[in-house]
Order: sequence, then structure tokens, then C-alpha cells
Amino acid sequence: MPRYLGPMPIFADLDNGTNPATTLQKSLAAVEHYALKNEMRLRITEVDAKGVLKIKAGEFLKSDLCQQHGLHPRDLRKIDSGFSNHMPVVLVRPEVILINLGHIRALITADLVILFDSPDSKDRVEDSPFVKDLQEKLKMNTVDARGQPFEFRAMEAIFLSVVASLHAEMDVLVHYVLKLLTDLENQIDQNKLKELLQYTKKVSRFESRALLIRNVFEELLDQDEDLAALYLTEKKEGHPRPVDSHDEAEILLEAYMKQTEEIVNIVALVKHSMQSTEDFVNIFLSAKRTQLLLFELRLAMGTLGISSSALIAGLYGMNLHNYLEHDAHAFFVVSATAAMIGGTVFMTCARKLRVLAKGTA
Amino acid sequence: MPRYLGPMPIFADLDNGTNPATTLQKSLAAVEHYALKNEMRLRITEVDAKGVLKIKAGEFLKSDLCQQHGLHPRDLRKIDSGFSNHMPVVLVRPEVILINLGHIRALITADLVILFDSPDSKDRVEDSPFVKDLQEKLKMNTVDARGQPFEFRAMEAIFLSVVASLHAEMDVLVHYVLKLLTDLENQIDQNKLKELLQYTKKVSRFESRALLIRNVFEELLDQDEDLAALYLTEKKEGHPRPVDSHDEAEILLEAYMKQTEEIVNIVALVKHSMQSTEDFVNIFLSAKRTQLLLFELRLAMGTLGISSSALIAGLYGMNLHNYLEHDAHAFFVVSATAAMIGGTVFMTCARKLRVLAKGTA
Amino acid sequence: MPRYLGPMPIFADLDNGTNPATTLQKSLAAVEHYALKNEMRLRITEVDAKGVLKIKAGEFLKSDLCQQHGLHPRDLRKIDSGFSNHMPVVLVRPEVILINLGHIRALITADLVILFDSPDSKDRVEDSPFVKDLQEKLKMNTVDARGQPFEFRAMEAIFLSVVASLHAEMDVLVHYVLKLLTDLENQIDQNKLKELLQYTKKVSRFESRALLIRNVFEELLDQDEDLAALYLTEKKEGHPRPVDSHDEAEILLEAYMKQTEEIVNIVALVKHSMQSTEDFVNIFLSAKRTQLLLFELRLAMGTLGISSSALIAGLYGMNLHNYLEHDAHAFFVVSATAAMIGGTVFMTCARKLRVLAKGTA
Amino acid sequence: MPRYLGPMPIFADLDNGTNPATTLQKSLAAVEHYALKNEMRLRITEVDAKGVLKIKAGEFLKSDLCQQHGLHPRDLRKIDSGFSNHMPVVLVRPEVILINLGHIRALITADLVILFDSPDSKDRVEDSPFVKDLQEKLKMNTVDARGQPFEFRAMEAIFLSVVASLHAEMDVLVHYVLKLLTDLENQIDQNKLKELLQYTKKVSRFESRALLIRNVFEELLDQDEDLAALYLTEKKEGHPRPVDSHDEAEILLEAYMKQTEEIVNIVALVKHSMQSTEDFVNIFLSAKRTQLLLFELRLAMGTLGISSSALIAGLYGMNLHNYLEHDAHAFFVVSATAAMIGGTVFMTCARKLRVLAKGTA
Amino acid sequence: MPRYLGPMPIFADLDNGTNPATTLQKSLAAVEHYALKNEMRLRITEVDAKGVLKIKAGEFLKSDLCQQHGLHPRDLRKIDSGFSNHMPVVLVRPEVILINLGHIRALITADLVILFDSPDSKDRVEDSPFVKDLQEKLKMNTVDARGQPFEFRAMEAIFLSVVASLHAEMDVLVHYVLKLLTDLENQIDQNKLKELLQYTKKVSRFESRALLIRNVFEELLDQDEDLAALYLTEKKEGHPRPVDSHDEAEILLEAYMKQTEEIVNIVALVKHSMQSTEDFVNIFLSAKRTQLLLFELRLAMGTLGISSSALIAGLYGMNLHNYLEHDAHAFFVVSATAAMIGGTVFMTCARKLRVLAKGTA
Repeated sequence: MPRYLGPMPIFADLDNGTNPATTLQKSLAAVEHYALKNEMRLRITEVDAKGVLKIKAGEFLKSDLCQQHGLHPRDLRKIDSGFSNHMPVVLVRPEVILINLGHIRALITADLVILFDSPDSKDRVEDSPFVKDLQEKLKMNTVDARGQPFEFRAMEAIFLSVVASLHAEMDVLVHYVLKLLTDLENQIDQNKLKELLQYTKKVSRFESRALLIRNVFEELLDQDEDLAALYLTEKKEGHPRPVDSHDEAEILLEAYMKQTEEIVNIVALVKHSMQSTEDFVNIFLSAKRTQLLLFELRLAMGTLGISSSALIAGLYGMNLHNYLEHDAHAFFVVSATAAMIGGTVFMTCARKLRVLAKGTA
Repeated sequence: MPRYLGPMPIFADLDNGTNPATTLQKSLAAVEHYALKNEMRLRITEVDAKGVLKIKAGEFLKSDLCQQHGLHPRDLRKIDSGFSNHMPVVLVRPEVILINLGHIRALITADLVILFDSPDSKDRVEDSPFVKDLQEKLKMNTVDARGQPFEFRAMEAIFLSVVASLHAEMDVLVHYVLKLLTDLENQIDQNKLKELLQYTKKVSRFESRALLIRNVFEELLDQDEDLAALYLTEKKEGHPRPVDSHDEAEILLEAYMKQTEEIVNIVALVKHSMQSTEDFVNIFLSAKRTQLLLFELRLAMGTLGISSSALIAGLYGMNLHNYLEHDAHAFFVVSATAAMIGGTVFMTCARKLRVLAKGTA
Repeated sequence: MPRYLGPMPIFADLDNGTNPATTLQKSLAAVEHYALKNEMRLRITEVDAKGVLKIKAGEFLKSDLCQQHGLHPRDLRKIDSGFSNHMPVVLVRPEVILINLGHIRALITADLVILFDSPDSKDRVEDSPFVKDLQEKLKMNTVDARGQPFEFRAMEAIFLSVVASLHAEMDVLVHYVLKLLTDLENQIDQNKLKELLQYTKKVSRFESRALLIRNVFEELLDQDEDLAALYLTEKKEGHPRPVDSHDEAEILLEAYMKQTEEIVNIVALVKHSMQSTEDFVNIFLSAKRTQLLLFELRLAMGTLGISSSALIAGLYGMNLHNYLEHDAHAFFVVSATAAMIGGTVFMTCARKLRVLAKGTA
Repeated sequence: MPRYLGPMPIFADLDNGTNPATTLQKSLAAVEHYALKNEMRLRITEVDAKGVLKIKAGEFLKSDLCQQHGLHPRDLRKIDSGFSNHMPVVLVRPEVILINLGHIRALITADLVILFDSPDSKDRVEDSPFVKDLQEKLKMNTVDARGQPFEFRAMEAIFLSVVASLHAEMDVLVHYVLKLLTDLENQIDQNKLKELLQYTKKVSRFESRALLIRNVFEELLDQDEDLAALYLTEKKEGHPRPVDSHDEAEILLEAYMKQTEEIVNIVALVKHSMQSTEDFVNIFLSAKRTQLLLFELRLAMGTLGISSSALIAGLYGMNLHNYLEHDAHAFFVVSATAAMIGGTVFMTCARKLRVLAKGTA
Repeated sequence: MPRYLGPMPIFADLDNGTNPATTLQKSLAAVEHYALKNEMRLRITEVDAKGVLKIKAGEFLKSDLCQQHGLHPRDLRKIDSGFSNHMPVVLVRPEVILINLGHIRALITADLVILFDSPDSKDRVEDSPFVKDLQEKLKMNTVDARGQPFEFRAMEAIFLSVVASLHAEMDVLVHYVLKLLTDLENQIDQNKLKELLQYTKKVSRFESRALLIRNVFEELLDQDEDLAALYLTEKKEGHPRPVDSHDEAEILLEAYMKQTEEIVNIVALVKHSMQSTEDFVNIFLSAKRTQLLLFELRLAMGTLGISSSALIAGLYGMNLHNYLEHDAHAFFVVSATAAMIGGTVFMTCARKLRVLAKGTA
């Protein structure tokens, strides 16, 4: 399921481009184009009230879909991936519910579910396990469905699939990140740091996506009219729900909002762990460098001490008359003096260093 | 009580896994499985209206529980730890109150408390001190209970246990953290830094848990209908509370919310202390390194000075005719000159360094 | 379209100034001036109900405009760029809608759109592609416009242009930033770091602008009276909308708010990526320096070892009687001893270093 | 007034403990104990409606107090410092107002003020200047009090004392912190950095306390019922205030909320200053180290140059036939060559360094 | 206008103090004093309904002012700078509007504006350009004032002066900061870093002040009763405004709130720029140090190489029999060998360094 870990489409698009001028022109062209492509076709799959696949990957004109289901082109654009469109949304319109959540783009009526193929994937919607689940749920008779109307069963199948796939994606991300953090805490490695950077970005994008989905549930729960308008079957049968009676809808949406919230919560904790580990790596490297500097100082002190001794030796090595040329013990006395001078220099520095190094271990 | 300080279950699960592919498959399998396990059994303990343990660790079908207490399977899933479920929740349903808070998962009716064993612990619920407390509280007669109905006494026993255990856990965490911080402020040690990292993560997870519990109380307090619906006994006796009359419920919940808020507050202060100490360690190490660098410079200056002197000695050590070979005082004059040159180099550098070092002590 | 990437006007103004005293005086002068310039003229372009350009770049007195459309001078000041005015705004007044969003400053009545030239650009409004779009949209008959009244078609043309141009600007910014980040992650370069700083500021300013536009939509959506007051045509025809009936207005504004929100969202992710990359560069450089320090230590150890050997050589180089002058093997024995001493010093340090370096790779 | 600057009780408690196992057991014991100590006694001081000290440090059973004033034990626990209780609170109950704010814990009825001794201080409440103020205020006749009823005069005396003592504490904290920051900006000193860490924690704790007090005022102002219930005298006289008529209460509480807000505001600015100074110290040290590194490089270049010269000297110092032994000028020529080589090495490095150092001063 | 850039009064007060004990005592004394100074006099300037200066710098007893305008001493304390009082405020009382915003403290009645001299400045209020503006505005007849009542004209004059002076102050701050940032980005200088620290604090304080003023407008706009109570003239004429009819007041306040918001917005962007530049300086210095370290390593490698060569020379310089003393080519062979060994050491290290340096430029 590499799709989960890939970059967001917009990022992918831009990564490839190399010439900024071209990008700008493409962007502006997209704007022009935007106004014109309302007449594009959409590839859809239809499941009817009995769970039967009526249409597989059929192509429809947007305008026909709008007319058929009383939609405004602006509405359809929300689930039309022609225009970069990453904002998940659940739109409640008089006769339909429009859903664009995670990998699913669907339109639910009182007796029909229309699924839209995402144009940027090769997979056909009708082959996915989600469609099987959906069909099964729609086939249920009223008793098995505990009286849930058609549109609620369709919504629940969609929400379940969206949340379950978010959950699976989270599990994989969290697994990798925690392993990476453990590795980094044991051994700081430049390649692992680069990996951490990549995962930081991935986790942020995932969190942003999960949060947007959570917000869709929350916004819907805040709108009493929209909640009541979800009862499409009752509306079709001529007795729409009063605005303040929508307990089943509320409980259903709340359940999936809570699950998305849980995902957001865990991801936030993982983000915090990543941040903590980054801070730790920084401090650890700083402490390490301080220690290495202390060692370097000891080496420098050694070099200074030996240089001092060597200077004495050097002076006696000059081709000048030093009066000790023929002294029998001079070699040993001078050598010892040189060593002593070097040693004294080293010891003096070492005392000073001990004071300076206080507070670090 | 090591359970308090352990990692969150989901983190523990993932820490063990090593093969990402396996993890992904397990995650996806969990999703499949998720739809099927509605028929699982739950191990429960029942305490009746007189505080008597009626059932100890009995196993029940979820579907039976649902039917018996008018619950939806979706509701029961909130306290069923089969699916990873870390969001605490208090659900108010027509005949029952469902509670999943901290270590307690319970179902309260007007005359029964059902406690669910948590499947990931070996401890049986019925042996815990909490059950003793609960039984005692439920045994009270009306006067001792100051007129508190059965369900309120049950809730208060649960809330008290949850908040007291949060408080105990906080005390231990705070104790360790403050000791660690004091240690680090006196002596920066790489192992202590690693410990700090672990505690940073633990404190974040604890804060997140406490905050979620606080939010459960707050959400409940925001819903007048739910507060009124808490009066199960009155509802059973046929005179449910009006929506705007729920003073006892409000005061009870507010008291425990305030206590959880206090815990969250103290933990936030501790987190801030950890952050401050981290910042301090960073600056302290930076100041330390600057000081060590100043010392290193003095050593380097010494080495440079001695090298300068040694160069003079070296030149006079060449096997070349230097015209001073037979001069009687040359050795002392040249040695003194060499020392003077070295000293001048050192002093010049020292003056420069004094200017550079200004502003650091 | 260099305008997109340029600094905000106020920043540009201030960048040029060099004498602080002058700046202060100019500022205070502006305050004086501010009270007097109410009588200034505005250059405007008018499009009538049939999409015809009635007036091109005509100059009008502010006071005439106020009187004609029942405006207060304070209102007109919102779209008058004479006073530094960066806050986008949509003002709903009894007979007109005043819009200052992005590059467009307009006044909409029930049958007229007045566009204001921005004084700080050479471009005439009437040459822009936006005016073409606007004219086309206003020309539509009622059927093509799906019953949208004149003022809604004008607003939609403006909002579309504003959001599309924000989107294009975002695309360019994001493109450059992502390229820069990729470059920096591969090779840390000081010029690229400077570029990153510039882009950080640009992205912040862009985010601030997009956020302000989003807030304009949100504030309008929060005011039921303002939403109802948008129906200028119906008001003119004598049957103003009741305060709680403004579904079309709400849906229209919501659509563009969501698109602006999407832009804000993507920019926030990009900002996060920039922050992550900055953090990575910091840690990477820190790890790099630690590694380089380890290498430096090895060089220092080598220097110390060689100095030790050289000291021995130096001692035997003294013009003193060392008793080995005529020994046949002394040269090799002393040389070997010197080498051994140097080697021992090096190996001792190397062992110490291996312990110190643990935890970094 | 060392109490102001001391650590929060809970922190103090934990600082002393050394054995974590003990702490845990104490914590758990506290939980047990918690349920039992409802019968503890409280030491109180009573001031009557004429400002006369009726009871000085008398001991009362909690249960008696509860019964006498219609309180729930849960209420009394809020001002009972037996259980760690740092959340300030103003509770409005039918016959009394319970206050736990800063250093004052009090119970106000329509004609009585009961002050509770805090058990963790040696000071008796009745000796404090606050009690004098309170007595004076309560003694006032109706005219001097501008018609303020008894309970309002008592509250105002308490609020005034709490806010004035917060203000005094803030002044001292701010004074020390600003002095410390000025010192640090002139001279970075490791002891001062440690002091800064301690003040950072103190300021955070102070801010948290002030914020909690502010929130108490705000929460009370949000509750119309509680505001109306503050008029204890009118309630006692049998004509309780209607819920929407509580102007005097609102104005009184707002005044003290604003003053607490001002304190919070100033402390937030001080916190920001501390953060800015920390950031500055970090950057300053970094800039300093860069400069010192540049100086070190110059020393290293000198050492390299001299070593190069010394190598030439060393080569001519070898006991080998160098053909210049008897040349009259060789010494000067070789010495000059050696110096030139050293100089060239130094100059080449210096040129390179100048390029590298660009951008730092 | 140095007042703009100076520190906040409270900070200034504390900067001067040196003895902490004194400060504490002064603070506590202030608390005592606080209760007594209600009888202090205020120096005021009065402008009547026709814009005539009736009283210039007259002294009044606070108690008289209170009685005359139906105020509570608590109200007057808000504009009395005797007690440290930095919170801006607009208080609406039955007969007056009390304003303490920025540099202006005023009391507005239906036909009188009273301006209070600020005791900490030498300037008399009546000489300021603001008073001229105010007089001019109050002189207007009803037509010129577009029907604005007296109190609204007074408020607008005050708000205009406050916002214009905030704007001027912002311009100066922003100008200096942007110049400083540009300088720092080109050349990192320790004095400029210190200046940056000072400006960071100044900008924070300015932002805090602007934000507080903005909040005053917002709070007033949130209170329908207060907005309606602003119409003092109508109240005096006996027909007070109904609570829900206050359009002119709302539009007036909103206009100035928006302008203050714009200032806050620009300052926030500037703060962000400062933060970005600080981050950049940090990373830039880190990158610089890494580069300098690489150069240092090359020097150390050179020193190591030369030391190696020198060791060979040193060995042949020993006064020991080396068998090559009389060899004709030995000097050149040994010199070449020494050079080769040095070169090899250098090259080996250089290869290693090239690997290590990868990723930095």
C-alpha cells in the first residue's frame, strides 16, 4: 500500500517541475481552464438499493449528473479531482449526500450509491474490498440493519472504510517512526536523521489529512439542519425529519468522529516524540562535543608540554657553544629538566582544566 | 504499580514489531477482523444495589448485553478493548451509563454496576481495592448517602478511583522528573539526558491521558440533556428529570473535573520545567564550550609561541656556518632572543584574545 | 507576474528609507494628511448590468461616490489605497456591496459594478483578463445564470478571480520552496540558506494574506443580517430577504471560503516542511561537526604521537655527550624507541577516543 | 516575604523525597487516607457583621461547619488544604460564598466572615494586616459603604488583599528578573544562567497561579445564576435577586479580573523578555565561538607556517652532507628561504580564510 | 517622539532600583497607600459642546468628579495613573463614557469632554495637536457632522488620534527593525545582535499594547447594552436607545478595531521576520563554523604532514651514527623521503576528509 506513504499529489506535481517559468504558466493556464472544464466526464460505479452493481466504470457528463440529482456544478466540483482538491467534505443537498473523504468519493441518494473513480489511480473502484463491504451492507434486510435506512448503511460503510484505512496507515507510520526514533536514540546517524526529516513531513501531512476528516464530522454535527437532512429515505417518503430530531445521525457521526480523533491524538503524541527525540539528539550532540573538546584540550596540553620540552632540546641542539658539551651528566640532567618543564606545563594546564570542566561529565 | 509508567499499549505493540511488511499486513487484517468480532465475549463482574458481588468474572456475549440494556453494538465497542481504544468516554444511554475512564470500564444501571475486565491485564477486577470501595459505597443507606441515588454513588466511586489513581501516578512521575532535573542542573550527564528524553515522552502521554479524561467531564457538563439523563433511578421510577434540573449531577462532575484540571495543571508546569531545563542545558553547554575554546586558544597561543622560539633554535641547529659557533655568549643571547620572540608572539595574541573574549565570563 | 513574489507594499516603502528621522516625520505627516484627503479622486471602471464597459478609467470625486451610493467616507476609505490598507474586506451597505480582496477593489450595486484602479500599479483594470470574465458572466441571461441575480454573478466572478490568483501564486511559491528544500537536504549551502530565509518571510506574508481573505468570508458567513443584505436586486425590487433566508449566499461564500482554506492548509504544510528542514539542517550540521571533531581529534592524536617521537630525536640531537655517539645500532634502536613511544601515545588516546565517540556514527 | 518566591508546596514536598518507592507508597496511602479524613478539624477565625473578631483560631469539626451552613463535604474540601489543593475557587452556595484565593481561604455568610488558617504556615490569620482591613471595611455604616451590603464589602476586602499581594509578588519577581537579564546581556556567566533557569520556573509558576485566579473571576462572571446568588443579604431578607440583575456584582468582579489580567499581561511580557534573552545568549555565544574559531584558525595558520620553516631548518640540521656546510652565506640564505616558505604558507591560508570568513564580523 | 520607543513605565521603574529589599518594601507600601489615595486630586482640561476650552489644567478632587458624574471611585481609578495602570479601557456608565486608550485619558458626557493630564509627562494636554483636532470636530454644526451627536464626534477624535499615533509608532519600529534585519543578513555583528534583542522586546511590548487596545474595541462591540448606552445625547434628551439599535456606534467602533487589527497584523509579520532572521543567523553561523572547521582540519592535516617530515629530519639530526653521514646523495634522498612521507600522510587524510565533508558546501 505504497499510496499511503507517498507525498500529497500537489507536492508530487511540483517536485517534478524544474523550470519556474513553466510552472507559473501552467498554473495560470489551469486557472483559465478551470472555468471551461465543467463539461468534463466522470467515471462512475453505481450500486443500487439491493447492493447490486448496476454500472461499472461508466462515463457520465457532469451536467447530466447535476440535473439528475438537483446539484449545482459547484457541488460536483468538490468531488471532482480535476481541480486540485484535497479538502474532504460531506455535502448535504436536498436529494443527495455528497462525500469526499480519504480515498472515497461518493454520492448517496435514497436508493443509490454512486462511487467516482479517482483519476490519479489505475485501480478501478469496483475491484476494491470496500465495494464488497458496501454491497453486503446494502443487501441486508431491515431487521439485520436494526432499522437503519439505506443512506445510513451506505454512509456507515464509507465511514468505516475511511477510518479503518486511516487507522492502518497510522499503524504503519507509527511503527516506522518509533523504530527510527529508538535507533536514533542509540546511535546518531546522518542517514537516519535524513529519514527522520522525511517522516516528520509525512506525519505532518497525515495529521493534517486526519484532522480535516475529523473537522468534516464535527462541522456536520454542529449543523442541526444538515443532520436532519441526512434522512433521505424519510424525505423521499414525504415526511422529512424535524430539525431537532436526528439522534441516530448524531450517534453515528459522533462514533466515527471519536475514532478519527483517537487517530489524531496518537499521531500528535508521535509527533511530540519525534520532537523530543530531535531535541535530545541536539542536546546529546552538544554534550558529546563538549566532552570531545575536553579530550582535545588534553591532547593540546600534551602537545604544549612536549613542545616545551622540545624547545629545551632544540636550544641545546644549536650549533653554539653551550659549555656543557663535554659534561658527562649533562645529557641526562638537561633531558630530565626538559621533561620536568614539559610535565609542569601539562600539570598546570590540567589543574586549570579541571576547574573549567566542572558541571559536565 | 509499574503499569502507570509503562508505555501506552499501542506504542508497546509497535515497539516489538520489526518487519514493516508484517505490521502493515497485521493492520489490514485487523481492519477485516474488525467487522466480524462483534460477537466476541466479555468477562464481567456484577455488583448489585446492595453492594453484593453477584457475578465474578462471568463471560457474556456482547449481543446479550446489548439487548438486555438497550445498547447499540457501537456503544459497547467504546469499552471493549478488543479494538485499540484509548479514548476515555462516558456515554449516557436511556437505561444505562457506560464508562471507560482510566483503568475502569463499567456499565451502570439504576440498580446494577457491571465492571469489565481489561483483557490486557492479568488482574481480576474483583480483587482490586476499588471494588471494595464501590461495594461499601453502594451498601450505604439513604441517610448516609445524603440522598444520593444508586447511580450517583456508583459514579462517584468510579470517578474517585480514577482521579485518585491519576493523582498517584502524577506524584510518582513528578517526583522522578524533579529529581532528574535537579541532577541535570548540577551535572550534565549523557545517561541522564537519555532518561530525560524517556520522561519527556512519558509526561506527554500522561498529560494526554489526563486531558482526555478532563474533556470527558467537560463534554458531559456541556450537554444539559445528558446531565438530566444521568438520573437513572428517577427515570426508572417513571418521573425523568427535566432537562434544566441537574444541579447534583453538575456539582458532582464539576468537582472531579476540577481535580483532573489540577492534575493537568501541575503536569503542564512540570513539562515547562523540563523544557526550561533542556534550554538551560543547551545554553550551559554552549557557554561551557565557549569557555573551553578560550582555554584551547590559550594553549594554541602557547604552542605558537614555543614554535616561534623553537624555529630560532632550529635555524641555529642547521649544519651551516652561522659565525657564532665560537662566540662565548651566543648560546645565552640566542636562547634569550628565542624566548623573547616566543613571549612577544604569545603576548600579542593574548591582547587580541582579551578583546575577543569580552562579554563571556 | 513578479508582483506575486515581491514584498508587501508597506515593507517596500520602509526598505527604501534610510534616515529614521525622515521616516518618523513622514509618518506623522501622513497622519495629518489623512484627515484632509477625503476629497481625493478615484480612478474607476464601470460595467453595467449587460456587461458593457460604460466608463473606462474615469476619475470621480470620493464625495460624489459616497452621495450617489449612500456610503460613509469611512466605508470608501476601506478600498482607497491612499492610506496604507492591507486588510481585505467585504462591506455590505444598504444599496451596495464594497469589496477589497486581493488585487480587486470593487463596488457592486443591483445593476452596476465599479472597479477601482489600484494606484500602485501601472496596469489599467480594464485590460485585465478578469474584466473579460466579469463581462461574460454579467452578459448571461437568467437561464444560463441558473437564476443567479446580477450581484451574485458579479461577486462570483470576483471571488473566482481572487481565489484563482491566490492559487496560482501559491503554486509558484510552493514549487520554488520544495525545490529549495530538496537542494538543501542534499547539500547545505550558505546562499541557499539565505534564499530559504527570504522564502520563509514570503510564505509567512502569503499565508497572512490568504488567512485574512479566508476570515473575510468567515465573518460574512457568521452575520445572518449581512448575508440577507447581499440580495441587492430583491431589495431594490422592494422585497428584501428575511434575515434567516440566505441559502444561495451561504453556499456561494462557503465554496470560496473552503477553497481559500485549502490554500491556507497547503501553505501551512509547506511552512511546516520549511521548519522541519531548518531543524534538520541544524541537527545535521551539529552531527557533521561532531564527526569532524572526531577526525580532528585523530589528527591531534597523530600530532601528539609524532611530537613525542620528535622529542626523543630532539634530545639525542642536543650537542651534549649522550654516550651512544659511536654505538653502531644506536640510530636504529633510538629511532625505533621513538617510533614506539609515539605509537603508544597514539594508541592510548585512540582507545580513550573510542569510548568517548560511542553513540555517534 | 520569602513565601512568595518559594516553590509550590507540591514541588517542595517532592524535592525532599529521595526514595521513589517511598513516594509511591505515600501517594497511595494518601489516596486511602483521602476517603477518611472528612472528619478532620479546621482552625478558624470569625469576624461578625460589626467587624468584631468573635472567634480567634477556634477549632471546628468539618461536619459541624457543613451542617451549620448547608454545605456538602465536597464543597469544604475545596478550601481544606489537607488534600493537596492548589486550584483557587469561589463557590456560591445557597447561604454562603466559599473563597479559596491566593493566601486567603474564607467563608462568607450574610452576617459573618469565617477565615481558615492555612495549616502549612505558622502565621495566625488574625495577626495579618488583611484582617485589620477587613474589620475596618465591615465596621462601615451604610452611607460610607455606598450601600454595599455586608457580603460585598467582605468580598472586596478579600479580593483587594489577594490582588495587592499578587501585585507585590509580581513587582519583586519582575525586579529581579529584569536585573538578571540586564546582567546577562552584558556578561554571560554560568551562575547567572543557572539563576535564570530558577527564575524561569518561578515566573511560570507565578503566571499559572495568577491565571487560575483570573479564571475564577471569569468563570463567575460567565454564570448569571451565581452572580445573582452573591446577594446573600437580600436572599436572607427573603427577596433574592432575579437572575439577570447583578450589575454591582458584575462591576466588582470585573474590576478585580481586569487587575489580575494586567498582572498576567506584565508577567507574559517578562516571560517573553526572558525567552528573547535566552535566544540572544544562544546566538551571541554562537557568534562568539565563530569569532574565536577564526582566531584559532589564524593561530593554526601561524603554527603551520612556522612548522614549514622549521622543517627546512630541520632538514639542514640532519647529520648529512648538505654541500653548504662551508658556504659563507648559506645560513642567511637558507634562513631567509625558510622564513619565506613559512610566510607564503601563512599568506595563502590567510587569503583563503578571508573568503571563508565573509558574512561574520 | 522618543516616548514611543522607550520602555514601558513599569519596566523603567524597576530598571532603576538596585536593592531588592527596597523594592519589596516599596511594593508593599504601595499596597497600603493604595487604599488611601482615593482623595487625590486630578489635573484636567475641559472642552465644552462648542469646542471651547473651558478649563485648562484645573485641579479637581476625585470625589467631586465622582459625585458630579455619577461615578464610582473604582471607575475613576481606571484612568488615574497614580496606581500602575496599563490596561486600556472604555467604560460606559449611565451619564459618561470613560476612556483610557494609549496616550489619552478622557471622560465624555453629553456636552463636555474632560481630558486628564498624565502625571508622568511634562506636556500639558491642552498644547497637543490632538486638542486642536478635538476642538475643530466639536465645533462642527450638525450638517457637517453628518448628524453625528456630540459624544460620537468626541470619541471619533480620540480614536483617530490613538490609532494614528499607534500607526506612526509602528512605522518607526518597523522601519528600524527591517533595516537591522537586512544588515544582519549581510553581516552578523555582535552589536547588531544586541540591538536585535532590544527591538525584539520593544516589538513585543508594542504588540501587547496594540492588542489590548484592539481587545477594548472588541469587548465593547460584544456588549449590545454598552453600545446602546453610548448614545449619551439621546439618553439625556429622555429617549435612550433600545439595546438592539446601535448601528452607528457599531460601524464606528468596527472601523477603528479593523485599523488596530491591521497594525497588530503587520507587527505580527515583523515579529515573524525577526524570528526567521534569528533562526537564519543561528543556522548560518552553524554552517559557517562547519566550514571553518573543515579549513581547520586542512591546517591540522598540513601540520601533521610537516611534523611527520620533521620527525624524519629530527631522527637524522640525532648525534648518533646513521651510516649516511658521508653519502653524497643522502641529503637529497632523505629530504625527498621525508617530504614524501609528509605528503602521503596529508593525502591520506585529505581523502578521508572528502568523504566526511559530503553534504556541506
